[in-house]
This record gives sequence, C-alpha cells and structure tokens, in this order.
Amino acid sequence: MSTNLKILVLNGPNLNMLGRREPEKYGTRTLKDIVQSLTQSAVNYDVELSHFQSNSEAELIEHIHAQYDRVDCIIFNPAAFTHTSIALRDALLSVSIPFYEVHLSNVYAREPFRHKSYFSDVAQGVICGLGALGYEAALMAAVAELRKRDNSN
Amino acid sequence: MSTNLKILVLNGPNLNMLGRREPEKYGTRTLKDIVQSLTQSAVNYDVELSHFQSNSEAELIEHIHAQYDRVDCIIFNPAAFTHTSIALRDALLSVSIPFYEVHLSNVYAREPFRHKSYFSDVAQGVICGLGALGYEAALMAAVAELRKRDNSN
Amino acid sequence: MSTNLKILVLNGPNLNMLGRREPEKYGTRTLKDIVQSLTQSAVNYDVELSHFQSNSEAELIEHIHAQYDRVDCIIFNPAAFTHTSIALRDALLSVSIPFYEVHLSNVYAREPFRHKSYFSDVAQGVICGLGALGYEAALMAAVAELRKRDNSN
Amino acid sequence: MSTNLKILVLNGPNLNMLGRREPEKYGTRTLKDIVQSLTQSAVNYDVELSHFQSNSEAELIEHIHAQYDRVDCIIFNPAAFTHTSIALRDALLSVSIPFYEVHLSNVYAREPFRHKSYFSDVAQGVICGLGALGYEAALMAAVAELRKRDNSN
Amino acid sequence: MSTNLKILVLNGPNLNMLGRREPEKYGTRTLKDIVQSLTQSAVNYDVELSHFQSNSEAELIEHIHAQYDRVDCIIFNPAAFTHTSIALRDALLSVSIPFYEVHLSNVYAREPFRHKSYFSDVAQGVICGLGALGYEAALMAAVAELRKRDNSN
Amino acid sequence: MSTNLKILVLNGPNLNMLGRREPEKYGTRTLKDIVQSLTQSAVNYDVELSHFQSNSEAELIEHIHAQYDRVDCIIFNPAAFTHTSIALRDALLSVSIPFYEVHLSNVYAREPFRHKSYFSDVAQGVICGLGALGYEAALMAAVAELRKRDNSN
Amino acid sequence: MSTNLKILVLNGPNLNMLGRREPEKYGTRTLKDIVQSLTQSAVNYDVELSHFQSNSEAELIEHIHAQYDRVDCIIFNPAAFTHTSIALRDALLSVSIPFYEVHLSNVYAREPFRHKSYFSDVAQGVICGLGALGYEAALMAAVAELRKRDNSN
Amino acid sequence: MSTNLKILVLNGPNLNMLGRREPEKYGTRTLKDIVQSLTQSAVNYDVELSHFQSNSEAELIEHIHAQYDRVDCIIFNPAAFTHTSIALRDALLSVSIPFYEVHLSNVYAREPFRHKSYFSDVAQGVICGLGALGYEAALMAAVAELRKRDNSN
Amino acid sequence: MSTNLKILVLNGPNLNMLGRREPEKYGTRTLKDIVQSLTQSAVNYDVELSHFQSNSEAELIEHIHAQYDRVDCIIFNPAAFTHTSIALRDALLSVSIPFYEVHLSNVYAREPFRHKSYFSDVAQGVICGLGALGYEAALMAAVAELRKRDNSN
Amino acid sequence: MSTNLKILVLNGPNLNMLGRREPEKYGTRTLKDIVQSLTQSAVNYDVELSHFQSNSEAELIEHIHAQYDRVDCIIFNPAAFTHTSIALRDALLSVSIPFYEVHLSNVYAREPFRHKSYFSDVAQGVICGLGALGYEAALMAAVAELRKRDNSN
Amino acid sequence: MSTNLKILVLNGPNLNMLGRREPEKYGTRTLKDIVQSLTQSAVNYDVELSHFQSNSEAELIEHIHAQYDRVDCIIFNPAAFTHTSIALRDALLSVSIPFYEVHLSNVYAREPFRHKSYFSDVAQGVICGLGALGYEAALMAAVAELRKRDNSN
Amino acid sequence: MSTNLKILVLNGPNLNMLGRREPEKYGTRTLKDIVQSLTQSAVNYDVELSHFQSNSEAELIEHIHAQYDRVDCIIFNPAAFTHTSIALRDALLSVSIPFYEVHLSNVYAREPFRHKSYFSDVAQGVICGLGALGYEAALMAAVAELRKRDNSN
Repeated sequence: MSTNLKILVLNGPNLNMLGRREPEKYGTRTLKDIVQSLTQSAVNYDVELSHFQSNSEAELIEHIHAQYDRVDCIIFNPAAFTHTSIALRDALLSVSIPFYEVHLSNVYAREPFRHKSYFSDVAQGVICGLGALGYEAALMAAVAELRKRDNSN
Repeated sequence: MSTNLKILVLNGPNLNMLGRREPEKYGTRTLKDIVQSLTQSAVNYDVELSHFQSNSEAELIEHIHAQYDRVDCIIFNPAAFTHTSIALRDALLSVSIPFYEVHLSNVYAREPFRHKSYFSDVAQGVICGLGALGYEAALMAAVAELRKRDNSN
Repeated sequence: MSTNLKILVLNGPNLNMLGRREPEKYGTRTLKDIVQSLTQSAVNYDVELSHFQSNSEAELIEHIHAQYDRVDCIIFNPAAFTHTSIALRDALLSVSIPFYEVHLSNVYAREPFRHKSYFSDVAQGVICGLGALGYEAALMAAVAELRKRDNSN
Repeated sequence: MSTNLKILVLNGPNLNMLGRREPEKYGTRTLKDIVQSLTQSAVNYDVELSHFQSNSEAELIEHIHAQYDRVDCIIFNPAAFTHTSIALRDALLSVSIPFYEVHLSNVYAREPFRHKSYFSDVAQGVICGLGALGYEAALMAAVAELRKRDNSN
Repeated sequence: MSTNLKILVLNGPNLNMLGRREPEKYGTRTLKDIVQSLTQSAVNYDVELSHFQSNSEAELIEHIHAQYDRVDCIIFNPAAFTHTSIALRDALLSVSIPFYEVHLSNVYAREPFRHKSYFSDVAQGVICGLGALGYEAALMAAVAELRKRDNSN
Repeated sequence: MSTNLKILVLNGPNLNMLGRREPEKYGTRTLKDIVQSLTQSAVNYDVELSHFQSNSEAELIEHIHAQYDRVDCIIFNPAAFTHTSIALRDALLSVSIPFYEVHLSNVYAREPFRHKSYFSDVAQGVICGLGALGYEAALMAAVAELRKRDNSN
Repeated sequence: MSTNLKILVLNGPNLNMLGRREPEKYGTRTLKDIVQSLTQSAVNYDVELSHFQSNSEAELIEHIHAQYDRVDCIIFNPAAFTHTSIALRDALLSVSIPFYEVHLSNVYAREPFRHKSYFSDVAQGVICGLGALGYEAALMAAVAELRKRDNSN
Repeated sequence: MSTNLKILVLNGPNLNMLGRREPEKYGTRTLKDIVQSLTQSAVNYDVELSHFQSNSEAELIEHIHAQYDRVDCIIFNPAAFTHTSIALRDALLSVSIPFYEVHLSNVYAREPFRHKSYFSDVAQGVICGLGALGYEAALMAAVAELRKRDNSN
Repeated sequence: MSTNLKILVLNGPNLNMLGRREPEKYGTRTLKDIVQSLTQSAVNYDVELSHFQSNSEAELIEHIHAQYDRVDCIIFNPAAFTHTSIALRDALLSVSIPFYEVHLSNVYAREPFRHKSYFSDVAQGVICGLGALGYEAALMAAVAELRKRDNSN
Repeated sequence: MSTNLKILVLNGPNLNMLGRREPEKYGTRTLKDIVQSLTQSAVNYDVELSHFQSNSEAELIEHIHAQYDRVDCIIFNPAAFTHTSIALRDALLSVSIPFYEVHLSNVYAREPFRHKSYFSDVAQGVICGLGALGYEAALMAAVAELRKRDNSN
Repeated sequence: MSTNLKILVLNGPNLNMLGRREPEKYGTRTLKDIVQSLTQSAVNYDVELSHFQSNSEAELIEHIHAQYDRVDCIIFNPAAFTHTSIALRDALLSVSIPFYEVHLSNVYAREPFRHKSYFSDVAQGVICGLGALGYEAALMAAVAELRKRDNSN
Repeated sequence: MSTNLKILVLNGPNLNMLGRREPEKYGTRTLKDIVQSLTQSAVNYDVELSHFQSNSEAELIEHIHAQYDRVDCIIFNPAAFTHTSIALRDALLSVSIPFYEVHLSNVYAREPFRHKSYFSDVAQGVICGLGALGYEAALMAAVAELRKRDNSN
C-alpha cells in the first residue's frame, strides 16, 4: 500500500498582497482563496498539500531545508526572487526535491529584468501567465510525474 | 444557448517525429497518441478540438490565417520556429486569436538560443517542461479563460 | 526605340491579410487595392508591373530566381522576412537585380527586433512608414534611376 | 477641513551605521540626527512624519505593506537594495503609494553597479549626492506635489 | 475654403556642400538645384514650400521652434545630426509638427554609427538612398497624409 | 564681512519652450515663471542669482568660461546635452566651479538614451523628476554646502 | 559481407543558382556538374550517393526525416539556412545521422552574420572555402570515418 | 604585552546544509566538523576564533556591524550572496574590518553567474576550490598579515 | 617654382582655456603661446600656417568648408568633439583635405568615452599625449608627406 | 617543364603531444605518424612537403618568414595560437603565401573562446573536426588550387 | 612504502623581477627568497619540490610537457599569461596533472583584463591576494588532496 | 656636467620584414634604413640610441628587464603584441621606464582587433600613422620631456 504524495506550495514576496495588488495584472482572488481551491484539487488527487508564503528569503530558504525527505515535490512561485535569489536556487538544490516554477502573470510581457530566472533551468517545468490556474497545472503535472516514477519502481 | 468552444492545437516542425526523436528529451509517445488523449479531454470540456502539424512555416501561417473568426483559441507549440519566426508571430497577431505557447521540454535547460521566444510576450501564457501534459494544462487554462469571458458578456 | 521597363512588386508573409490585420497599423486597404493603384501609376510611367505575394520563403526565393534577366527592378516588402531571411538576401544577390525595400509601417517605432534588416545594406534605397505610398515612392525612384542609366548608355 | 499629510521616511540596509561608516562619503551625522531635523521640518509643513530603518529586505517589504492606505508618500533611501531588490519594487507598486528615491552620496561617482536602480523608473523623482539635505528636498517636493493634488480635487 | 498646406524642407550640416562633396555618394546636383525642383513640385501640389539649411544645431533648433503653429509638416534631412542630436529630436517634439526623415545616401550601406537615428522612431516615415528623389517622395507622402487628415475633419 | 554667494542657473536646449512643450511631461509654467520664483528664493538666501538659457552648445560653453572666478556654484539643467555633450563637461571642469545637475522630468522613466549623463559623475548632486522644484532643491543644497565651506575656512 | 555505405548530399537555398550566381565567389560550375563529379568519386569509394537540393526549409526537413535508418551520413551545405534554421538542426538531431557541414566560400571572410552556424557544434566536421572540393573532402572523411566504425564493430 | 588576535569565521546561506548538500561538490564534512578543526588551528595560532552562520542577509549584516572594533579580521564565505548582495559588501566596508573571501568549490568551474563577486575587489584575498582547507589557508594568511602589521607598529 | 605649403591648425572646444584649465593635465602654456612656437617652426619649413579655434561645432564646420582648395593639410585637435561630432568628420571628408588628429593629453589614460574617435580612421595619423609637441610632430609629418607627394608628381 | 609544388605543413603548440594528449579528442596517432602519411600522399601529388612544429610563437613566425618565395602554400594548424596570435597572422600576411587553416577537433563543439580565429578570414579555407584527414583534405585542395592557377598562367 | 610526493612550482613572466617590480603591489621579497621558504615547507611535508620560472611561453609549455608522469601536482602562477595563453592551458590539459592557480596580488582589485583567467575553470583551486603565502596555501592544499587520494587507493 | 640621455628603440614581431611586407601599408624602407636615420637624429640631440628587434615576446621582455636603470626612455613599436601581450606591459611597468608607443600604420583604419592596446594607457604618448616619422616624433618628444625633467631637478 503506497503512502500519499506530499506536495508543498511555496510562495515568495508580496504574494500575500494578492487581490489588493495591481488587480489588472493578478486578479482579485486572494492567496487564501487560491490555496483553498488548490487544497480541494489536491484532495481529489490524494495529495497532502502544505502551503507556505513568506516575504523573507531566509524564511523561504529554511522552509525548503525543512522539507528535506518530507515532501515529494515543491510548486514554487518565487515572485521577485525569481530574478535575484541564487540562495533560494541553492536551497532547492541542497534538498534535491523536484520543483515546478509558477508565475501568475506572463513575465515575458513585462520588464526585461523579469525575463531572467535563477530557477527555470533546474525546474521540472515552468508555467506562467495562467493566473491561479498555473498552480493547478503544476499540481496536475507533479502528480502525473510522481505517480509515473512510483509505478516504474 | 451558447455554442461550443473551438480550439486549434497547432504543432511546428519536427513534432511529427515525436516518439522517434530523442526520446530521453521527448518521451516515447507519438504526436498521434498525444492528440488522441487531448481530444478525449476536449470532449470532456465540450470543446471542439482541431489539430494541425506542419514542418512548413508557410503552411502554418496559412493555417493560422484560415482560423480567422473560426476558432476561439490556439494552443501552439512552435518548436524550433519559437526562436526564429517573426512571420508566425505576425500571422497570429493578424487574426487576433489568443494563444498559449507550449513546449514539451524545458527549453531553459537547453541551448541558450532556445531561451528567446518570438511568441511569449504576446501569448496568454507559456508552459514548458511538462511533456504532453503541457497541452492538457493549456487546454484547461484556455477553457477556463474563455468561459470566464463568455460569462462576463 | 527603347523597350518598356519591367518592375516586379514582391510582397512577403501576411501581407495577404492587409485590410484585415491590425488596421491601426496598416490601414483598411487590401493588397489588391494597393496593387491596382500601383498598376495604374505604372501605366503612366510606361512600366510593365508584375506582382507576387507569398507567405512562403521558398516561393519568394524561386520567384526571384525566375526574374533573372526578365525584370529591371524589384520593389520588395519582405515583411517579417526582413529580419530573419538571409536566404532571400542571397536570392536577390544571385540574380543581380536592383531592388528597393519598402515597409508600410515605421519599423523603427516598433519592437527592437524589427530594426535589423538583412536587406537594407544591399538595397538601392529603403522607405518605411509611408503606408501604401511607399510603393509609389519606390516606383517613382526606380523609374527615375533606370531611365537615368538608360540615358547614360 | 483637510487632515494632515502623512509621510514615511524609509531607510535601507547599513544606514543605521551613518556617522560611523565611511564618514568621508556620508558625513558624521547619525541617522537619528537626520531624522530629528527632518521631523522638525515636517512640523513646519504640518506633515506627520514617521520613520523606519531596517537591514532586512523582508522587514522593509512588510513595513511598506502596512502603509497601505495609511501614508500619502514615502521618502525612500533603499541603500544597497537600490541595485538588487525587485521584491521591494514590487512591494511599493503593490500599495500604490508615490515615493521619492533618495541617496546620500552621488551614486554616479561610485562603482558602476551602483548606477542601476530598480526604483528610479517608478519613482516620482530621484535625488542623490545632497547628503542629508536630499531628504529635506524630497520632503519639500512631496508636500508641494501632494498639496497640489489636494487642491485640484 | 481651405488654405494652402505649408511645408518646411530642413537640411542639416554639410548639405550646403552638395555637388562638391563626395559626388560618388551624393551626385553632382547642388542643394539649390534640388530645392528649385522641389519648389516646382510643391507648386503643383498647391503647397507653400520653405527651405532652411544650417550647419549649426542651435540654428536648426531655433528654426524649428519658430515653425510652431506655422507649418504643417517638416521634411528633414538631419545629415550627421541624425546620429548625435537629441536636442533636435526634442525641438521637433516640442512643436508637435509631424516630420519625415530623409537621407540622400543609403545609410545602412555605410559605417555602423550611421545606422542609429535619434529621429526615426518619432518620424512619420523614413526614406533613404533615393538621392534627391527622397525629398520628392516625402513631399508626395506629406501632401497625401495631410490632405487625408484635412478631409476627415 | 562676507560677500554674498553668487549662483548661476544655466539651462540647455529647448527649455525656452517650457510651458508650450509637452506639458504632460513639463507642466505649464514657462522658464520665466520658474526663474522669477527662484530669484525670489535666492533673495531669501542672500544669494545673487543669475540666469542663462541657450539652445547653443557653444554659447553655453562660453557662458561657463565667463563665470571663471565669478560664481560660486552653477545649477545646471543640460537638457538634451546631458546625454551628448562632452564639450560642456569639459567646460565645467575647466573653470572648476561646483555644479548641481537638475532635470525637470524623471529621465529614468523615459527613453534609455536619457539614462546616461556626461555630467552626473562630476556633479555635486543630481536631482530629477521634481519639476521646477528641482531648481529650488538644488539652490537649497548649494547654499547649505557653500555656507558650510565658508564657515570651515 | 558488408553492404555499401549510403551518403546523402544535401544542398540548401540558392545553390541551384550555382554557376550563375556571383561567380567570383562560387565559380562557374553548376550544381549538376559538382554532383556528377562527386558521384564519380563515390563510385570509386563504393558509396551509394544520393543528392537533394531545395530552396524550401520544409522540404529539406522532410527529406532529412525520410533518411531515417536509410543513409549512413549526410554531407550538408545549408547555405543561408546555416545561420537561421534551428528547425533543420532539430531535424538532423531527430534522425541521429552524422553529418558534415560544407560551405563553398570562406564564410569567415564575409559578413559577420555568416560567422554563426546552428550546425557546426553538432556536426562531425566543418569545411569551408574549398569550393566544390569541400564536398570531396567531406566524402573522403565520411567514408574513412564510417569504415573505421564498421571495422571496430 | 599584546592581546590575542580575534577572527570571525562567517558563513552565508545554505552552508548549514554542508555534508547533506551535493556532497560531490562540497564533501561529507558538516559545518560543525569544519569549525571544530578550524578552532583547533586557531588555538595553535593563539587566535580567538568565533563563528556565525546564517541564511539571512539581514542577520549577517547585523553580525558584521556588531564586530566593529571587536575582531581583527573576518574569514567570509558569502556563498550565494557572493553574487547578489551589495548590502553585505557595504556592511563590511562600514566596519572597516579586513576580510578574506573563501569558497569551498571552484566557482569558476560552475555557472557563469557564479563568476562575479561583489566582494573580491575589496577583499584581502580570495581562495576557492580548496574545500574546507580554504578556511585554514585564510586563517594562516590572516594571522601572518595581522602579526606583520602588529610588528611594524 | 613651387608655391609654399599651406597648413591650417584647427582647435576645438575649451582649448581657448589652455593654461587656465586643469594645468596638471594640459600644462601652463596658453594656446597663443603654442601657436606662436608653431608658427615659428612653420617659417623654418617654408609653410604658411593659419590658426583657428572655436567652441562652436558650426564655426569649425564652416571654417573647414572655407579651406576647400585653399590649404594642403589640417592639423586638428577636435578636443571633446573627437568623441561626439560626426558632422565635423563629414565636413573634413567633404573638402577632401588630409588631416592629422592631435590630442594634448593621453586620451587612453582617461575616461573610456574618450577612447572612441570619429576622426582617427580617416586621419593620416594620430598623435596623443605629447602635449604641445604633438602639433610640432604633426607639422613635421605633414610637411614631409606633402613634400614627398610634391616630388613624385 | 614545370617545377614541383612546394607545401609546408606547419603545426603549433602542444601538437607534439598528439597521441598522448586527450586521445578521446585527438586520437592515438602521433604527429610523426600523421606527417608520414601526409608525405606519402604528397609524393602521389608530386608535391615537395616539408614539416615544422613548434611550441614557440617566435619560431613559428621566423619559420614563416623563411618560406618567403620558397613554398607555394602552407597548411597550418595554429592550435591554441588560432585564438590568440595576431603576430602569426601578420607573419603570414608579410610573406603573401596562401594558407589553409586546419584543426583536428571540431572547435565549434568546444569552449567559446575557441570559436574565434585570427586566421580564418585571411585563409583560403578552413577545415575542422576531420582529425588527421583534415591535413589530407587541405593538401588535396591546395594542389588543385595551385595547379589551376598554374594552368591559367 | 609510499614514495614522496613531487610538486612543481611554476612561475610565469616577470616574476623574476619580484622584489624590484612595483613593491607596493608585490612586496620586497625576491622569487629566490620565496622558493627557499617554500622548499623548507615542502621538506616538512616530505614533498620533493622543484621550481621553474620563465618569461617564455614556449619554455613553460615544454617544461610542463616534460613533467608528464613525473610530478603529482603543479602550483602555477601564470602571471600575465593567465589572461592570454590558451597554449599553456592546453599544455596542462595534455599532461593531465592537477594544478593550483596562484596570484600574489588580488587580481580582482586591478584592471578588468586581469579578471579573466584561461586556467581557473580547469584548476583544482585558485588563490589570490595572499602574497607569497599563496604558494604555501597551495602547497598545504595539494599535499592534503594528494595524501587523501593516496589513502583512498 | 650632465651625461647623455640614453634611449632604446624597441621593435616587435614582423618588423624585421619591413620593406618586404605589405609595402602599400608600410613603405619600402627597411628597418635598418629607419634605424640609421633615427640614429643620425639621435646624434643631433646628443642622445645615445640603442635598438632591438625581436619576434619573440620572451626576448623583448628580457631586453626590457635588462634596461633597468640603464636607459631613460623606450620608444616602442609592439606591432602585433600591442593587442595581445599583457606580459610586455608588465615588463615595462616592472622597470619603471617611461615609453612612447609608435605604430607605422594608422591602426584605427584597420581591423577592429587592432584598436585595442595593452600599452596606450600607461604610455607617455601614442603616435600612429606617421610611418617611420613616428619614431622621429617620439624621439623629439622624449628628448624634450627628459630635458625638461632634467632641468627641473
């Protein structure tokens, strides 16, 4: 009998402002709304979903360290840290947990400094511009990929 | 009573070789397999799905022109043309059909010339590295987005 | 008694969509309208005008090859191929026919990737931003230049 | 009867060391001295001045979030974060509070990596090289600008 | 009854040397010859044509300022100032007069520093390599464009 | 008994058009209005204020030369010459008079070619985006700085 | 008993113009002449030589796809596509056939945009500037290399 | 009688994961192991060694501030902050304590973004690729350098 | 009987400040002193020397135009215009007079923007860092070169 | 009766280590083996082949100087000097002997600094990635080219 | 019983001038002094130390070739060749001897052209800015690393 | 009584070929001719002139080392080493002898890689394009400069 998959949804700086911040770019749903929907989807997939948001690079790093051997996958929206934090990249590599990079908005339609990511080349996949559905897509992909690995063992 | 959504799945050069070509990057499923699964999903969404693949930039351009006022959305994997075809970008803009850009592999983990896209900044969203699931994710997003617009009218 | 001048008007990808495509940039006249006016002007200049449009780089290349020793000048709007097709540049050089590069919109007021041309440095002249009048201006210039050469022989 | 204007003076990393740190660049006045003078000026303008300094990007982000609908303007010296923190830029944009960017030293006379700012293009104005007077100038400008808007309503 | 259109032909540094200077690039006609022909064409279009040439950036700026509300369009060959004078660009923007950028030679076939223009992105159109005919083409385009606006009012 | 401070306000090309030119960027006050206010402020500071504006780089250079040993400070808005005139930079260095660089608009929110200055690294300070208040801020800073030097002698 | 080696000679756009096109760069021999000589050499090596030329990227792609498991090596002169076609690169990789890149002229002595190749880093070898002999050299190398592999199996 | 030298060993983000994280790059010794060995070496040199590791840029900044006038030298492995933190650079400059930059792995053999350091040009020296021995080497160098200065006073 | 050689010494902006301006870079001799010595040398060479200095690009351009067919050579110190004036380059080319580029200081030991010259590639020779002797060296070279040409006719 | 052709094979630094050095890149044949085969081929072509290898740029330069009027062609593998030695380029140009550039490995599949050559643009042709056969190909091409010239005299 | 380790200390151009050359950068100790100390340290480690210095790239290359199978490690200060010699890099790779790169001064605090090394990415480690102690540190590291390998065999 | 000045003329690679090599660039005079004339001039200045030419960077380095405390100035034409040899730059700095950089041809009118010099920023002055007269000019400047220093002691 196999145990449930465990997936962490991790959100970076300013995402706590979702729903208030620049709604023309990010919509009116709050982060809480999004995580609730996502948790419901996870239940349907038999996945244990945890969530963590922080505006602090250090807290994010330490939350990642704490997942070592605990979660099977991370769905990560690094927000502004996407373009500036090598320390978060190193944190993810240090625990060897596969992750998906998600952005709510289409970063390629924004300022050039948002086109560079310190995560994309080591991510499983990258999803942007789908709004909150991006997390759902990443969840779907993560479950499929992890189940596939599970079955091949 | 609303009519069904119509969505075109459009695939660029060499994708007819899927399943044969570099399976460690693209898996063993053929394009036919992928389109069949996707068609099944489309049925579940009440979406009419059409599919076109070509190795010819000109055929792709003309297929796009022909969609004018016919499809609601395009799910587009431009493959190698992603990085080189401004003509395809212009074709998409000329018909004003929203589209999602999908890549099977994680292009950011490959050669630098694959990091630039002539489509991303005008796409609704971009999905890469999810394999065939990328099309499913785009389909899910397209349906949700188009239904949302439909409802707000 | 001198024979008539022969001039080819050559149009690249997506120009068949003129009048439908982004009218705020390109106006509402169709390519057919433009070519009709231009043909009328050519009559006034005693010029035999032919026209060819294609979305296919290969067809354009072969149409250029076929002009060898047949036309005196080409008025060429390479559209998106301006920025990407070295093969078309080579085709023009291979037949040694002088040509004028014409763009309907002001490419310098658009995306940076439209500022580079593979044709300008080997063109007789470059005209952009004049709309359909650009072709008229090129025609006027071509006739004057060719007549001047004719007279000096 | 109009309420008082509320302005936050926000200072980034290492500015707590003012007076001790490289006095040939920054003078001998401490941050406390500067804020006291500035508070005095604010009183003269009928402005409620608050002040916050932190060496932590996360604390600065959260302090900015907390100002939402509370202050009319921020006078911000992001110090070293000027050149590296997109997260702070996003925090400012998320609360839609106008801000002035102030630097004590002339950053253009220093290392090239100090010539790039993630704030200048979205700031009301930028002041550098005036030492502590830069804050006074920003205060003067902020008051004038806010009063002007107030009057035009 | 509509008044005549007024158009200024403006020429930058060294163009007074035309006919003497590098004839293999610019031909043997003097500036006076060119302006005479152009004036004749203008008469045919019912256009009042004025002309000004200067080797002085300041004189050109002030001549542009003086056109404010006086001319409908400027045909401008900024010559070497094309690549170096932001002040002239600002002068044109300050008077809000539409202008066409004209170059006698094909600047794209010359030194790389001649490929950058401070005018093209704010010009109505750009014409180069047509020799003196470039002014004629600009005149034709200007008249057509201005008449079209006139009619739509 | 100390003599009055002497400060020159120096304005570059097109600033004579203030109030007429692009008011959404520069407001409706004319240069004369601004100088009058500034002169009033100068009186309050016991400063002798002179003013000079020119569209000619050469006149600005020679006006700067003429200040040698005459003024204590220059408040300089080089306008478009900011980005192009090394000769003005050299003129300022040749007379060894400290200066403040002022821009009415926020140059960092405009075209990239306006982000480079030939003056900033040798200026006392740089102020931009404060509109006409930028001159006031520079005056305040100049007086404070010059008085401080005076007292320390 | 070993079967004959099979080698495809593949030629890109404009090479059908050989002998007519810029003879000072490419000589007066036509493509037909070159292929005939090469076929004669192939006979001497006991190699079955096929040849295909196209001005169409799509046709070249599909011709490559069709070689899958059919030829042992490709001698490829991509002509202008060398510098622009990632789709052809992908086509070659998709069929896993080793190939040699050949250019008639010395591309390094020509325009800078001809110095970049999308093929060189995945080719067996690169030969340029030898004229038609470049194909002979590639044939010699291909035969030697393939025989060596054959023997070591 | 001279007092003991005081040296701080300072470690940046993710170094707490040493021994767990990517052992093929960093080996199996934990940070605790390394600090213990180093403390033993320090005893042999009559040096008081302190140690601090943090994943938080802010904590590192404040730890550096707290060393002001307390330690003679810092041996600093900024880890990922090497390439991104100007705030840490400024913190070090603000306390005027000489420091050595140490990296466990050879950063030049890794991703290009690890080749740039915000510390190297203001460090006493830089050591990389020696593993834990890099700290020993820095300790040896720091002691020698500080003793030399001590003797010359 | 041959006529005397005629050489113009031409000096650009700020050189009228020589002797006053940054003497540690340019020495204490005034421009007048330098021209006097140079005139004396010219007498020894049987050369008619004229001199012109201006801070105005336009005056320099027109002075150059006026030399057409009048002088045999120009010794030109464009000062700051070296790096910014394409109009002066064009003026020199328009009169086809050979010229030598002279700089008093070693421009390569100064700011990077002084390393680029719009004159060097079309000058006979370039001399920098020799102080006023640079003019003497250019005079010597000009005379030798012109005499050589004279003799070979 | 024509004399024999004389060809020099010239090899640069480290090629004396062939067979020992990185055999997976360069194979196990020594330089002596290669030269022997090549000498045999030369005999078949009636060519006098000489060979020189040196690790010293100076010796290579002087060997090239000594070939002046002695050899008809040089087959040159500059090895690492390809990317760094302008002096060798100048040496080849000084003696006006045509040369072929040969590299054993495919330099385009290696480090980016090996993609630049100081020789390619002045070579007759460039061959890389063919191993020792590259010399044979160059020999074949040199003989054909030289014979062709011989015949046309 | 294991044999002694053998280590070569290799020094590049101008290091023979140590003690005379720019003592403020390199100190007053001669190379002989440094090698003597280092030899003493080597004795303590039971290491056979050899030393070679040359100003000739060719001699350094050949000395490296001669170490093949003779020394266990090289401590290499390539001096100016660090930034220019690919031939030395290739020499080191050809003999497959691990090496440490040492620089006396902190190259990152010097001219930008000294920041690039052709050795760092293939070195075991890099040490700079420690003066002569850099060799000692490299020796310590080399011995530790080699002993570790020895023990694991 | 003062001793004679001692000046070394130093020439780099390929200059021994002068008179034979590309005479259209360098003239027909041999190096011997030039040195003889220069020696005669030196006699007139009471200067002891020595001369050294080498194609070997190492010999040039060592010749420079040997001049330490022996010559007062070096007139140096580094030829191709200008653009590639940091070791020669370091050699000159190590002996602290002032030097003039001379090039026969106008390097700015040649390939871009000849526009960069590793010597210019540390030279007294730079002279190019004057042919052999460049050495004479450098000699004149060196004597004047050295005599001036002599007199001021």
